[in-house]
Amino acid sequence: MQYFTDTDMGLDLSQVNMSVESAFADHGRGLVQMPPKVYITLPEGDFRTMPAYLPSLSIAGVKIVNVHPKNPQIGLPTVMALTIILDLATGQPLAIINATRLTDMRTGAAGAVAAKHLSPRKEIVLGVIGTGRQAMAQVAAISCELKIKEIRIWGRNPVHVRKFADRFMEYPCMAAQIEKACDCDVLVTTTPSTTPIIRSEWIHEGTHINAIGADAPGKEELDPAILRRAQIFVDDMAQAVHSGEINVPIRTGLYRADEIAGTLGEVVIGKKQRSGAETITIFDSTGLAIQDLAIAKIAMQHGRKIELPFP
Amino acid sequence: MQYFTDTDMGLDLSQVNMSVESAFADHGRGLVQMPPKVYITLPEGDFRTMPAYLPSLSIAGVKIVNVHPKNPQIGLPTVMALTIILDLATGQPLAIINATRLTDMRTGAAGAVAAKHLSPRKEIVLGVIGTGRQAMAQVAAISCELKIKEIRIWGRNPVHVRKFADRFMEYPCMAAQIEKACDCDVLVTTTPSTTPIIRSEWIHEGTHINAIGADAPGKEELDPAILRRAQIFVDDMAQAVHSGEINVPIRTGLYRADEIAGTLGEVVIGKKQRSGAETITIFDSTGLAIQDLAIAKIAMQHGRKIELPFP
Repeated sequence: MQYFTDTDMGLDLSQVNMSVESAFADHGRGLVQMPPKVYITLPEGDFRTMPAYLPSLSIAGVKIVNVHPKNPQIGLPTVMALTIILDLATGQPLAIINATRLTDMRTGAAGAVAAKHLSPRKEIVLGVIGTGRQAMAQVAAISCELKIKEIRIWGRNPVHVRKFADRFMEYPCMAAQIEKACDCDVLVTTTPSTTPIIRSEWIHEGTHINAIGADAPGKEELDPAILRRAQIFVDDMAQAVHSGEINVPIRTGLYRADEIAGTLGEVVIGKKQRSGAETITIFDSTGLAIQDLAIAKIAMQHGRKIELPFP
Repeated sequence: MQYFTDTDMGLDLSQVNMSVESAFADHGRGLVQMPPKVYITLPEGDFRTMPAYLPSLSIAGVKIVNVHPKNPQIGLPTVMALTIILDLATGQPLAIINATRLTDMRTGAAGAVAAKHLSPRKEIVLGVIGTGRQAMAQVAAISCELKIKEIRIWGRNPVHVRKFADRFMEYPCMAAQIEKACDCDVLVTTTPSTTPIIRSEWIHEGTHINAIGADAPGKEELDPAILRRAQIFVDDMAQAVHSGEINVPIRTGLYRADEIAGTLGEVVIGKKQRSGAETITIFDSTGLAIQDLAIAKIAMQHGRKIELPFP
């Protein structure tokens, strides 16, 4: 059994995108085993257990990931993760992977796969709402799939906005008013908001939106009026209804689960697509265990390994 | 973060029994978070993911355990396990525990707690069906709670029977015909049978049975006629109906879930008890995540530790 640390070092983002895309294709074809995430509530946060088996990549395992919003006050990340990989033939644990940064990267990869398949334009103005680790992961991953002409970044904290712009100096990257950031071809929303911050009138036709922030009941970033104008694709039906961008509008009756246009997996295999160039499309991301297995498959070829005795 | 190996070395079985008993008490009082095990099917077996939070012991985590019946052919255990422990305040992974032998011990401890509370006699003839790791773990744990006057062991393989008898040389321990082994005060059944091997006429009144072997759909060891004569206590209602000794009789209509007398947790807190000295009682064990947390709490004070970098 090996413990893999620093697994994000030296990863080829294009390769990660491809691996995650292939996992979504298998999901679209119904070839994976992936029960819904199981939530356990702790005093200051929660943790989620995410088992899955992805036959086409010959990998099975479990990601364990917490969300503790007060952690940054004591210098720890809000989200930390381990992925355990089991041998398919014997069930023996093969690898324990430090998956904290991989979790950012696999979510970025899902956004890149969605933008690649759903954006009607391949050269884009990219709007980014929020300046944290996930905002950066989305831009890095999308840049492998689409040509970014310009980045318009909005965040509440000017110091974080400047840090974000420094990270992407190779692009024209400007701090923007939120309305101006929404005036783009692909919009990425990555805030932990529990009230909509993106107004419908700011979103023009033909925009593709990666709605990343909402990943637990009660969270939402988009004015429900946008949902009414848009075609919504989810990563997984059950998870999106429970904890995605649509969870609050479904509970308040402003949106119905049967209006969902399809899953990203169905888009990847060509079973579903955007209805026209002027449609607004939304990818509602909650994060799937198969994304974690897809990136684990690559990460185990990198990073430092520590040998551990087992059994 | 620490990796704990050899965690079974030097454990005090009485202390393990007490910790597991306290976990069952919390379960009986409804104080734990423990969703049902999640099963993933692999080509040659399966693995189960078992998250839980046990507030009274201040411990939370996940056990990941496989069952691969062909493993012994290549020199590996059928069952192997890891337990991941998270910090309650921050969600950070604190410990990874090699839980293969702990899994045997915590199941043994549950059997000991059941026998202690449900056997009408405190000095017992102990009948044991099966000679594997779990048979040995049951005897070792029960010996801490009840005075064993004699052990009657039955197994198909004479070499394994002899090995078992050698392990328990401190007792009068005799190889017995299956019918004679069932003529006892406390009977432990630990086989992976999928057809009943214990006949009703072999079980006399006042016997307590730990039915350990059935832990997956399709498995059963006891003639359903025994269930009809007995008071059945389960570890967890949902798990027992799905995969315990009663799973087949419930599916075939020979037993109804509403006939279950109660849970072991309810017995431990005195809410339920055997109805009389002549009753046959059965403890139907499937294995709970809270048992794994209860033994992890103790195991982390023992065994070798390897420091691992995280996050």
